[in-house]
Amino acid sequence: MHELGVVYRNIRRADRVAADALGALGTSTVHEAMGRLGLMKPVMRPVWPGARISGTAVTVLLHPGDNWMMHVVAEQIRDGDIVVAACSADCSDGFFGDLLATSFRAQGARGLVIDGGCRDVRDLQAMGFPVWSRAVSSKGTIKATLGSVNVPVVCAGALVHPGDVIVADDDGVVVVPAAAAEATLAAANAREANEAGKRAKLAAGVLGLDMYNMREPLAKAGLRYID
Amino acid sequence: MHELGVVYRNIRRADRVAADALGALGTSTVHEAMGRLGLMKPVMRPVWPGARISGTAVTVLLHPGDNWMMHVVAEQIRDGDIVVAACSADCSDGFFGDLLATSFRAQGARGLVIDGGCRDVRDLQAMGFPVWSRAVSSKGTIKATLGSVNVPVVCAGALVHPGDVIVADDDGVVVVPAAAAEATLAAANAREANEAGKRAKLAAGVLGLDMYNMREPLAKAGLRYID
Amino acid sequence: MHELGVVYRNIRRADRVAADALGALGTSTVHEAMGRLGLMKPVMRPVWPGARISGTAVTVLLHPGDNWMMHVVAEQIRDGDIVVAACSADCSDGFFGDLLATSFRAQGARGLVIDGGCRDVRDLQAMGFPVWSRAVSSKGTIKATLGSVNVPVVCAGALVHPGDVIVADDDGVVVVPAAAAEATLAAANAREANEAGKRAKLAAGVLGLDMYNMREPLAKAGLRYID
Amino acid sequence: MHELGVVYRNIRRADRVAADALGALGTSTVHEAMGRLGLMKPVMRPVWPGARISGTAVTVLLHPGDNWMMHVVAEQIRDGDIVVAACSADCSDGFFGDLLATSFRAQGARGLVIDGGCRDVRDLQAMGFPVWSRAVSSKGTIKATLGSVNVPVVCAGALVHPGDVIVADDDGVVVVPAAAAEATLAAANAREANEAGKRAKLAAGVLGLDMYNMREPLAKAGLRYID
Amino acid sequence: MHELGVVYRNIRRADRVAADALGALGTSTVHEAMGRLGLMKPVMRPVWPGARISGTAVTVLLHPGDNWMMHVVAEQIRDGDIVVAACSADCSDGFFGDLLATSFRAQGARGLVIDGGCRDVRDLQAMGFPVWSRAVSSKGTIKATLGSVNVPVVCAGALVHPGDVIVADDDGVVVVPAAAAEATLAAANAREANEAGKRAKLAAGVLGLDMYNMREPLAKAGLRYID
Amino acid sequence: MHELGVVYRNIRRADRVAADALGALGTSTVHEAMGRLGLMKPVMRPVWPGARISGTAVTVLLHPGDNWMMHVVAEQIRDGDIVVAACSADCSDGFFGDLLATSFRAQGARGLVIDGGCRDVRDLQAMGFPVWSRAVSSKGTIKATLGSVNVPVVCAGALVHPGDVIVADDDGVVVVPAAAAEATLAAANAREANEAGKRAKLAAGVLGLDMYNMREPLAKAGLRYID
Repeated sequence: MHELGVVYRNIRRADRVAADALGALGTSTVHEAMGRLGLMKPVMRPVWPGARISGTAVTVLLHPGDNWMMHVVAEQIRDGDIVVAACSADCSDGFFGDLLATSFRAQGARGLVIDGGCRDVRDLQAMGFPVWSRAVSSKGTIKATLGSVNVPVVCAGALVHPGDVIVADDDGVVVVPAAAAEATLAAANAREANEAGKRAKLAAGVLGLDMYNMREPLAKAGLRYID
Repeated sequence: MHELGVVYRNIRRADRVAADALGALGTSTVHEAMGRLGLMKPVMRPVWPGARISGTAVTVLLHPGDNWMMHVVAEQIRDGDIVVAACSADCSDGFFGDLLATSFRAQGARGLVIDGGCRDVRDLQAMGFPVWSRAVSSKGTIKATLGSVNVPVVCAGALVHPGDVIVADDDGVVVVPAAAAEATLAAANAREANEAGKRAKLAAGVLGLDMYNMREPLAKAGLRYID
Repeated sequence: MHELGVVYRNIRRADRVAADALGALGTSTVHEAMGRLGLMKPVMRPVWPGARISGTAVTVLLHPGDNWMMHVVAEQIRDGDIVVAACSADCSDGFFGDLLATSFRAQGARGLVIDGGCRDVRDLQAMGFPVWSRAVSSKGTIKATLGSVNVPVVCAGALVHPGDVIVADDDGVVVVPAAAAEATLAAANAREANEAGKRAKLAAGVLGLDMYNMREPLAKAGLRYID
Repeated sequence: MHELGVVYRNIRRADRVAADALGALGTSTVHEAMGRLGLMKPVMRPVWPGARISGTAVTVLLHPGDNWMMHVVAEQIRDGDIVVAACSADCSDGFFGDLLATSFRAQGARGLVIDGGCRDVRDLQAMGFPVWSRAVSSKGTIKATLGSVNVPVVCAGALVHPGDVIVADDDGVVVVPAAAAEATLAAANAREANEAGKRAKLAAGVLGLDMYNMREPLAKAGLRYID
Repeated sequence: MHELGVVYRNIRRADRVAADALGALGTSTVHEAMGRLGLMKPVMRPVWPGARISGTAVTVLLHPGDNWMMHVVAEQIRDGDIVVAACSADCSDGFFGDLLATSFRAQGARGLVIDGGCRDVRDLQAMGFPVWSRAVSSKGTIKATLGSVNVPVVCAGALVHPGDVIVADDDGVVVVPAAAAEATLAAANAREANEAGKRAKLAAGVLGLDMYNMREPLAKAGLRYID
Repeated sequence: MHELGVVYRNIRRADRVAADALGALGTSTVHEAMGRLGLMKPVMRPVWPGARISGTAVTVLLHPGDNWMMHVVAEQIRDGDIVVAACSADCSDGFFGDLLATSFRAQGARGLVIDGGCRDVRDLQAMGFPVWSRAVSSKGTIKATLGSVNVPVVCAGALVHPGDVIVADDDGVVVVPAAAAEATLAAANAREANEAGKRAKLAAGVLGLDMYNMREPLAKAGLRYID
């Protein structure tokens, strides 16, 4: 986080197969599989609904009101990447719009996660290019200050290293460290498999109280029923 | 609000017919009919658009980061109920997702109103299970602390007694005390009937200034027109 | 901003052709063409997605919890106007709903921009009447206090004079002073024309780094690449 | 909460001795003694630091931008009361200043807790009249709309019945139901007595891990130490 | 508001005697005397308590993260001025610290009002240089972008023209248009004179209900007393 | 960030002499010396004014509403440390009060930085134990869930490794990586030395425009002066 004016060209990306598989499971399952860690703050919302992506992070550190480095990060995108943009201070300016989206897509990006603002929402939806941001704003930016590319960044409260897996959907954005991608996938798959059976029982009217054997611990904790 | 670890099994629900009829009128009409009271704060938004429900409240008091009592309240749901979940402190965690929704629905719930976070938005929309919440978040919760079920709660600034009527739509969530349900319905129906005629006149170009006889009181208050 | 209880009947509206043409370009292009000024705060969001309008401002100054002046401004609407409502203090109350929308439309309004709350969202969407607001709330208002109509107002951080051009879409709301409408249109058109070519190049994989000749200034600013 | 235009003259106030004694213990101890309930949201802050009061609640329900009922509640104040002002919607207007403080004090009030704004902070501090509010604002209010006095209100997320004990200090504001005042006092005193011994041990370097016998449950929960 | 890169050297400042006298009355009295207009949003707070100033505005428009124009405005300060700094988008960066305060003071400034962040709070207090801001932040800024000096600006929701009177104290910041300074002073003085008598009556136990003759209008509005 | 239930006992602390010296320079100077990085969000404020500390970080990761790990971290404190507490989701609960402060101090802590709430403000001030937090709240917490101690954490948007230098004062909280402590100190000292001379010139009336040679670049950027 503490280097400015630096672009790391060679990063180790998480395993592609694991990254893709994690996306199919969704943020909530993945986040649970990680022990309830790795989630960005809920202020991060999709700028258009329904998108669901995963990929490997290329990171960029911006400064308020300045999107110069967005052009620098574009060159570092490889097929299957998601750009994760952090900012050195809170700023809702529209750092990103349809022109940059066109460029990012041409370089292979699957989407953008930005701790700032985004614009051209209508065009982004028409293009099918998904963005998660803390704001939507037409406010333009300048190109004057160096940040960095492919350094570790804090984005919406979550630490992201270049190459980490990013999973993003209507529920938010979760970060899986590259080294943990496969173990997290295994845990998430186990969790998912487990849920199907639970869902069927609950749909049939079985109560979680019974399915999870909660009655005894609740009573032990002192729960009283009053008629 | 001041009892912990208690579940009231027998509550007096508002009249079902009145509860259903209030839902058809919508939150804005019902809230006006109550003298502009009973509304939850506007931070409460539907997690997917277009839902419009009404029903009788079963209440649950949660603690931050803990959804244990959601399983306890599930057993107290009767057909036509809406679960109203309050929290002892502000927390955006995802206390509720598709598994609990499956269970709530199986018990007869029409929806959930929660002063906290919700997850699995895509699944909830696919199921058609509506939720009003202050946040969307994948963040999971633990099951460690007792709250209470069917005690009076404050949810998003509104006092809710078990059995009260809840009306929720795209405009927000309003609470009608069970004892006031029928009088409120009558007042809301009168208001609604009254509005149809007004709407026609306004559409025809009649000004509210004339329709409501506002010109004289405005002049009396000192309004000046300058050409 | 400093007159209360006054209605200006005769205002100079911006050129209609320019106002219409600016709407087709959208807020982000227009805001850039103005030198990155004139934008309302991003808290202003459309109450239903997809609307895109432009028109000339008629302004109204409200007080918290009081929508009396909304009926006064209705009479001042001319075909092609957009009502811009400011409030003397932050208030999320629902100052506006389907009845007023019916009236505004009958008078020729294309939409409403309000630094406050709005209700009857479902009806407004069904009518196709667009509103940009800081909140959605069923909370009703009273009719007791004089504000003003067609005075300069500050709405969501932007200064609006009666007759200014308002452009509003999914990205937000921008204000173009009447006297600047045509020059802004020319600048925005030039910008738009310029963007089409850029978009094609970026889509073909040309990098912004090269298209905008950024490599030299970045190197001069000290950017280092590390393999 | 659902009555407008009503003033209840006779309320049952909590025991004065208990109310006074609770104030000496402070909000944090009292709130713990109540099972971690009864606390207003942390947005409620003292307008000047250092005040610490307790007393019995007289309640008033206001509307946004309107402080008419503040004069109505003044007449209902008895010696040792604290006025608790709720509002039917969020509003930061300055509902209260030095004139009303002079009047409230003359009637016997010990302070004000208001879910809105307050002004004349310098004068209030000079008078030694404490106020807890969500905002400081010079914004004045009108006198046009009826609310109610001595009805149950929700103030900053907490339910307050007339006559309840209010405890307020630098940590915030807590509400103790009148019927629970003496039991809460007993529990709070026990807690306080218990804390003195703990404090001495902790000051002497004993760890909470040992004093509270946490090592075993932590190990059982899976805590691992790594050198 | 719509000019960038311009410095107006000659501005008409409000009458100095009126500006000074308004400061002695304080923001709440002045704001009331203006008909409850002209107030900045309550997010504007003094960075250290107790300061109370008034003076004439020199204005500056900044961009997020860029304080270059603060050096440009310094040259335009005349004795008795208050610098009012607006920003083209919300930004909490620390645009101002003790070095600029030293310079502003040397040029004759009485204080700063900034719709952004401020730093070196301890030094500012030691110097006795008052600042009202929306945030305190160490975050530094760059010097890369032109804004403007002595153009009309919107600062924290209030329109400020160069030369307007600014009054700032613990209650907030109010703007009096230069042309209205003397009339506002007269109205504020009348209000203040009027308040002394009221204060004495209220302190003696007279109720506002009687002093303001509110009992009849309250009864007429339907207020009911219940024993 | 991605380990739960782990306590690292041996951490490499930054050089003590550098840590102490950085504290004397203050957050703004240190943050500038780091290239404007390392700052926590401005929501982090001292719970009582005037404190100014520096030291080495011991870190703890908490969960919402649960302060169990605060007792675990206490044992890892060494003389001169500052505890930095992060939370897996936003929570304003009062995780820390005078008992824990007594314990932390006895173990050698200089203060606490917590991305959550704090209580017993009056006692903390009396003890002279400084805390920076995002909220003050009496709300108590439970002891049920494992977090971790001395893992890297994200606190108020800043990445903190165990052993990093923390500098905190009225302007906020800044983090200096242990490995960068000495270089940052050198840069900060150079900056500080440089400022003394600038301050004297500015106080004598020299303008920053001249002292920093800004007139030419401003003119080149297009700044126009209008008389």
